[in-house]
Amino acid sequence: MSTLSKSDTPIYVIEWQPIGLKSTGIQQQTILAAAQSAGIRFVAFCGGNGTCGSCKIRIIKGELSPITETERARLSDEDFAHGMRLACQIHPLSDLKIEIPPSTLSTEQRLQLEGEGFLSIFSQKTCPIQSVHLQIKEPSILDSCADTVRIKKALLITGINISCIHPRLLHSISDVLRELHWDIQLILRNQEVIAVLPKNAIPLGLAVDIGTTKIAAYLIDLKTGFIVLKKGEMNPQISYGEDIISRIAYTNINPEGREALQKNLIHTINKLIRDLCKGIHVVPNQIVETVFVGNTAIHHFFCNLPVGQLGRYPFVAAVSEALNFSASDFGLKISPAAGVYLPPNIAGYVGADHIAMLIGTNSDQCNRTRIAIDIGTNTEISLIHQGKIFSCSCASGPAFEGAHISCGMRAADGAIERVQISDGVFQIKTISDQPPIGFCGSGILDMVAALRKSGIINARGNFNKEDPRVQKAERNYEFVVVSKEKSTTGKAITVTRADINEIILAKSAIRTGIEILLETTGITSDQIEEFIVAGAFGTFLNVNSAVIVGMFPDINPEKFQQVGNAAGTGACAMLRSTEIRKRCEELSQRITYVELSTYPNFNDTLISWMHL
Amino acid sequence: MSTLSKSDTPIYVIEWQPIGLKSTGIQQQTILAAAQSAGIRFVAFCGGNGTCGSCKIRIIKGELSPITETERARLSDEDFAHGMRLACQIHPLSDLKIEIPPSTLSTEQRLQLEGEGFLSIFSQKTCPIQSVHLQIKEPSILDSCADTVRIKKALLITGINISCIHPRLLHSISDVLRELHWDIQLILRNQEVIAVLPKNAIPLGLAVDIGTTKIAAYLIDLKTGFIVLKKGEMNPQISYGEDIISRIAYTNINPEGREALQKNLIHTINKLIRDLCKGIHVVPNQIVETVFVGNTAIHHFFCNLPVGQLGRYPFVAAVSEALNFSASDFGLKISPAAGVYLPPNIAGYVGADHIAMLIGTNSDQCNRTRIAIDIGTNTEISLIHQGKIFSCSCASGPAFEGAHISCGMRAADGAIERVQISDGVFQIKTISDQPPIGFCGSGILDMVAALRKSGIINARGNFNKEDPRVQKAERNYEFVVVSKEKSTTGKAITVTRADINEIILAKSAIRTGIEILLETTGITSDQIEEFIVAGAFGTFLNVNSAVIVGMFPDINPEKFQQVGNAAGTGACAMLRSTEIRKRCEELSQRITYVELSTYPNFNDTLISWMHL
Repeated sequence: MSTLSKSDTPIYVIEWQPIGLKSTGIQQQTILAAAQSAGIRFVAFCGGNGTCGSCKIRIIKGELSPITETERARLSDEDFAHGMRLACQIHPLSDLKIEIPPSTLSTEQRLQLEGEGFLSIFSQKTCPIQSVHLQIKEPSILDSCADTVRIKKALLITGINISCIHPRLLHSISDVLRELHWDIQLILRNQEVIAVLPKNAIPLGLAVDIGTTKIAAYLIDLKTGFIVLKKGEMNPQISYGEDIISRIAYTNINPEGREALQKNLIHTINKLIRDLCKGIHVVPNQIVETVFVGNTAIHHFFCNLPVGQLGRYPFVAAVSEALNFSASDFGLKISPAAGVYLPPNIAGYVGADHIAMLIGTNSDQCNRTRIAIDIGTNTEISLIHQGKIFSCSCASGPAFEGAHISCGMRAADGAIERVQISDGVFQIKTISDQPPIGFCGSGILDMVAALRKSGIINARGNFNKEDPRVQKAERNYEFVVVSKEKSTTGKAITVTRADINEIILAKSAIRTGIEILLETTGITSDQIEEFIVAGAFGTFLNVNSAVIVGMFPDINPEKFQQVGNAAGTGACAMLRSTEIRKRCEELSQRITYVELSTYPNFNDTLISWMHL
Repeated sequence: MSTLSKSDTPIYVIEWQPIGLKSTGIQQQTILAAAQSAGIRFVAFCGGNGTCGSCKIRIIKGELSPITETERARLSDEDFAHGMRLACQIHPLSDLKIEIPPSTLSTEQRLQLEGEGFLSIFSQKTCPIQSVHLQIKEPSILDSCADTVRIKKALLITGINISCIHPRLLHSISDVLRELHWDIQLILRNQEVIAVLPKNAIPLGLAVDIGTTKIAAYLIDLKTGFIVLKKGEMNPQISYGEDIISRIAYTNINPEGREALQKNLIHTINKLIRDLCKGIHVVPNQIVETVFVGNTAIHHFFCNLPVGQLGRYPFVAAVSEALNFSASDFGLKISPAAGVYLPPNIAGYVGADHIAMLIGTNSDQCNRTRIAIDIGTNTEISLIHQGKIFSCSCASGPAFEGAHISCGMRAADGAIERVQISDGVFQIKTISDQPPIGFCGSGILDMVAALRKSGIINARGNFNKEDPRVQKAERNYEFVVVSKEKSTTGKAITVTRADINEIILAKSAIRTGIEILLETTGITSDQIEEFIVAGAFGTFLNVNSAVIVGMFPDINPEKFQQVGNAAGTGACAMLRSTEIRKRCEELSQRITYVELSTYPNFNDTLISWMHL
């Protein structure tokens, strides 16, 4: 059924599936525009220019304008065979019935972030980034004011008074204005113009959680707050030292070391940025705001700040306040005046990533007694009790990243991630159910717990040599999980005495931190009401195993919450909210840092937890 | 005569010559400290560490502590033979009579700046730079806050509340604090810490006037405002094009051209900085504030701003507002967070250097009818009348820099700088009275005026072939100033018809600018009350010659004032005064820019002034 408007322009009815919504469209309008007027949010990263190919739809019924060159470039033969078209390229020629695939529908977009439950509760009212569309009159000899003045005048007409154009934007501004024929989208931050984009391009944000071992990067649609893509990489600084202390030592010895460490990190982050932007077919220039979190040393390496004093007694950070930079200060290949926000550090070994984790779990607003722990090569723990927050840092080492374990590996396909013992039989589960290759962090933790539970190792970690699966190894004994004969790699998968020692060292470091925080506040583990475990390993570990080996206290299992990369969640939340940044800064002032190494009972406590 | 104090410490009387002042000193005190307590200002750039050697004095009478290693390193045998010592290294052992050489006495320091008369009238109450001495408590494990927090806390105790430490300072701050044993001088700008210096080091400022052809750099003692050293260099961008238009064309053709032009300029400025600092034995890190002025294109090249649109109709600047950067944004090898202030531009071809010149001559506060002109490859002219300011720009070309003149040269030794005719005889004067090599700008102007006055050339610039000194040249005729036989270079020094044409083109461009400004305001040249001529060439030119050739109007000679590099004076003044910066910004808003090329009578006026 078509109706005619007064001007004889036919108005067509469009039925959208699977939403079940009906709306109208005219021939002059693209299907993308029709969807937008109907309030349906499409993924259209390029702003409808046909360059990203993300607004794919399937035509169930009805006539459309012919296939364009752009569609031929973006869609495959298979797409066309299935009736797929690009919404930004086509116009209705009759009533239509259209199916929107989930990948095209912005609101259906699967959030790739674990711990997303926490994200949704944040208010997004105070986004530091604003966007304004401007159509500016071109200069002439009688109206030849400078380009920056012309922008300011045009903004003033729309009622916006800006203080300045960001200096880093000036290098390109005149050319961009002319390329876009003065029809532009201005991106503003704090009364300052920080980017000039094509009018329909979506401003993007980038949140990066830089771990000692791994980097996680999140690309955010700043208008909706959705995480549009996420990607991880290894921290390339590993080649300068596995842990922070070795990297600091490297910079102490090599005069150019600090610069090299920074350059390396930026290089990898730029690669992540390229990959993320390629993944959604946008130019990195659309990234106009960023947040970076990491521990204090990583934070200092990222900013090329002095670390010598951080590596020696009394372990002093150069900077603990929140910092604001521009992308070009770091050589980040995004919009040059894009903001770089670094939340505050707490102490030399409790950094901004812990702030981000506490914010990502709303721990700063928590009224209950809560432990919040982020397990990594360096493990940070906070105890929230009666509105006070005590934090400490433990050198847990990289065992749970699979390092320093004889058959250890990263959490990739074929890694043993779960071990259960039932009726004396070990059952293993590997990632993607591939033939086992080695242990990732959660697998080795389970394994040690199962060995202990079954009595194959004793409280000191020594093997029961009577067990048939325990065999003599080069230096000591080992437990054979998969025999050489049965292993597809041709190598047996075993657990050695040294592996067990690594786990004992790691878990006792963590438990000592927990116990000293409890002692500092004068409470016992029974009083813990919530026990939040964050971080990639923290999400996958079996809490029961952690309790068996004595890493976590033996409390009601329902008190444990495994929340994924809450530091990443926190960093994403900071991207779009000055209010949350303020919370970070207030939080950093409120926290009482507990230095474990000078705590009177530290050594005794550590030794007392060195049993299974 | 020695007196004994109560504690038996002998107090010696020191007589200072040639001042004639008497004061006292004790053995525990250096002579430098004694001078300082007596209110005598010594040059002591290093702050009294013995590294600069600038506090040389001569001992006329009396006993002193023995010669130190430092003195041996800094003073020559001749110095010692003349009784020279370093005031910062020696202690009195008896009453003394001391002679202070002029070079050691700060208040006697010769100001190297022409036009200094204008400088002295500026108020220095609003210096953007403050200096604070702090002795900070070292960190300990119980007081291990970050270094930046420690500084803020120490400042707060002295009653100073700062907003932050400049991000560019963070890269070195921890190391510097420890090197100086926490006994430091903090340099503050706008509630921000921008440098950490040794406690006695003098904070320095750098003002640079970047001309199309030449660069002039001034090093300023920010505490007193004295210019301590000045140095000039050629603008290295000349190798990319003699004038602005060719340089813009170069960047249009070469994608990396803009960056190359900037890099080149910064390289030369860094060389100037090194030379200036070496000249007074200080480290470039003591430079904590800078001002750069230049015409609009040079300003854009310096900042690596887009210039394509500046080179084509309607000649639009990217930026006209005042800009603030940090030294490290440019790779300037001074204190990395040192401020870089660029005053506003007026239009595409009237730049910040003209603003600086107007400020350097107080033209913004002038109540009389004044012409203020800065002659260079590009000449800018302002007419101040009844509180209004009209400005224009003329393409006068490089003839007055000695370029495009057959026997032209820079104003160096042997250049003919003055020509007089008396009783038909030409009298020439060269720079440093060396044998003549060629003409600098003022020489060729004088020469053309003398030729015209003596009737050897007519109003159109054609030679009177009857004159014995006029001879046939390759293309036309030429006037022989020094014959081949008499010339020490073995080459005759002549003035060709083409040379005369170059001068006619230059002078008519300038006169046209003056006339159109007069026409715009509706006044005649008789009404001009003051005619200020700035710039190096403007200082040395013979005003009478400029009137004879018709470059300047024929007004009462007493109305002319030749003020030297007033743009440099203005830039120096901006270094130490936010009030003067405000005046610059207000001035840029007040000026009415007159575009000559579209002025109705432009061509007619230009042609009408093309006679001598």
